[in-house]
Amino acid sequence: MEQIKVGILGYGNIGKGVEYAVSQNPDLKLKAVFTRRDPSKVITMGAPVYSVSEIEDFRDKLDVLILCGGSATDLPEQGPHYASMFNTVDSFDTHAKIPEYFSDVDKAASVSSHTSLISIGWDPGLFSLMRYLGESVLPEGSNYTFWGKGVSQGHSDAIRRIAGVKDARQYTVPVPEAVEAVRSGSNPSLTTRQKHTRECFVVAEEGADKARIEKEIKEMPNYFDEYDTSVTFITEEEMKRDHSEMPHGGFVIRSGKTADGRNEIMEFSLSLKSNPQFTASVLVAYARACVKLNRMGMTGAKTILDVPPVLLSPMRPEDILKGIM
Amino acid sequence: MEQIKVGILGYGNIGKGVEYAVSQNPDLKLKAVFTRRDPSKVITMGAPVYSVSEIEDFRDKLDVLILCGGSATDLPEQGPHYASMFNTVDSFDTHAKIPEYFSDVDKAASVSSHTSLISIGWDPGLFSLMRYLGESVLPEGSNYTFWGKGVSQGHSDAIRRIAGVKDARQYTVPVPEAVEAVRSGSNPSLTTRQKHTRECFVVAEEGADKARIEKEIKEMPNYFDEYDTSVTFITEEEMKRDHSEMPHGGFVIRSGKTADGRNEIMEFSLSLKSNPQFTASVLVAYARACVKLNRMGMTGAKTILDVPPVLLSPMRPEDILKGIM
Repeated sequence: MEQIKVGILGYGNIGKGVEYAVSQNPDLKLKAVFTRRDPSKVITMGAPVYSVSEIEDFRDKLDVLILCGGSATDLPEQGPHYASMFNTVDSFDTHAKIPEYFSDVDKAASVSSHTSLISIGWDPGLFSLMRYLGESVLPEGSNYTFWGKGVSQGHSDAIRRIAGVKDARQYTVPVPEAVEAVRSGSNPSLTTRQKHTRECFVVAEEGADKARIEKEIKEMPNYFDEYDTSVTFITEEEMKRDHSEMPHGGFVIRSGKTADGRNEIMEFSLSLKSNPQFTASVLVAYARACVKLNRMGMTGAKTILDVPPVLLSPMRPEDILKGIM
Repeated sequence: MEQIKVGILGYGNIGKGVEYAVSQNPDLKLKAVFTRRDPSKVITMGAPVYSVSEIEDFRDKLDVLILCGGSATDLPEQGPHYASMFNTVDSFDTHAKIPEYFSDVDKAASVSSHTSLISIGWDPGLFSLMRYLGESVLPEGSNYTFWGKGVSQGHSDAIRRIAGVKDARQYTVPVPEAVEAVRSGSNPSLTTRQKHTRECFVVAEEGADKARIEKEIKEMPNYFDEYDTSVTFITEEEMKRDHSEMPHGGFVIRSGKTADGRNEIMEFSLSLKSNPQFTASVLVAYARACVKLNRMGMTGAKTILDVPPVLLSPMRPEDILKGIM
């Protein structure tokens, strides 16, 4: 079997997850991890590590490069840059900037005849696919997306920037009554506050003013002011013991009408023990599809909606017809 | 806007649902309903009705023909036959015979350069897509499919064939404990009996031996003998009042592992007030995709896994990037 040759750029939680996920897929082979750090300091499960400065030497040695950097500063620069050298897959997740990012990556990938799958993961990603399926199958209806219960990295970071905060973890929690109202088919209009609550666990520095910290969190614009927020102060030991995992998940619900006002509900949900590892698993399945799309001549930037599902696994057509359909 | 011209073959519950679903999609136009009955006796929502004997005259007048017949006897004959004249979409749902049906339709559609989407609906159909996504994203894991609570037409018919039975309705019901065990990530092995129960509502003929009927139902091979089955005798009025709708639904759950044995759960569920109307809604979205696939030169038989999701709706690419992703 000819294996698909995979590279990883960036070895944080997602990069580590990609290395593990590649090991679960015998038709894929991890050839290299690229890092901006000193390669000798990066300990992988076994993949060779190179400085990112050497990446151009791999132009002809990789079928696909999985970009595992962050959406705030890494990917806006890396996405277009590496699309000019490799087929790429990334999990760009700043929803408001997807059109601009798509356009930038598309230009680079089209010129170089590569294929770049952007915004692959679960939201954006599988959740986008489910929102779109809902719109397509039940055009008269509404989509609802709920997140959680799970750790929001961005909100946790925002709390950590407050003076007197040593560590923090923020959980986004869907409001059960709102989820039930949607599932009932009542098509409710829901405000931000009605859909999710935010639970914060904070380790304060010795002698810090906890009342002030709590007030600063709850009034923080965009992050917390529109939500019902709870703040619980805990010890460093409790943080380590109870909050070191990165669970997440959520629901996409389509509530739509067929004849005589009958209500039909489609729901997709995820319950994840590890958000970065699951995201990595999605990236790896779509990396396989990315290589196949490129071999079919489908170049440029693509989203999850452009991918025929059949490209996602190494299953044989006859096994799909017999075992999956 | 150039509308996609749709035909319907067969005007039962699915055919009626297709007519309604087409009316919800302004880019589609229903041109003709074909029937084996006397056309003057078929009352549609407004679509013109023709005898199936006239269907060849429509070879150049339809972009796609939606086959709304049954899987037992209609589709095995109609699928290959009409694939030689039209792009077709059907909901062939005899799982064990899908490979053979695919092959028969593929030959006809390939020769005529048409595109035939087979086994479109929710199972097979959307559930197949979800099973495949689960396999692809979490290769180390198990798929579980539960059906119901909903009316099984085949099981209801089987009861009606028993002597002394005037009418019957059979509901397939997932066992809540089994669903919860799967959702917990415990990867249980479940027997047929552990996954579903069967609830039967029966109108007996005047003076019929109810004890015998109940025994015959519960011991019927393949249909009931492997299940815990309940039989409730009701009146004709109760049947009409409480059991005239065709609700259905179910769950596809993928339970799989990422690093360090962490368990990740993907779940897709449907809660349908009308099984045939929802099936029709899926058929119509895929009919649009079928026409686009054919225009792209992708001819022959295809399944739901071959369809890039982006072909399913008339949304503009820029609206997808902004509003769906």
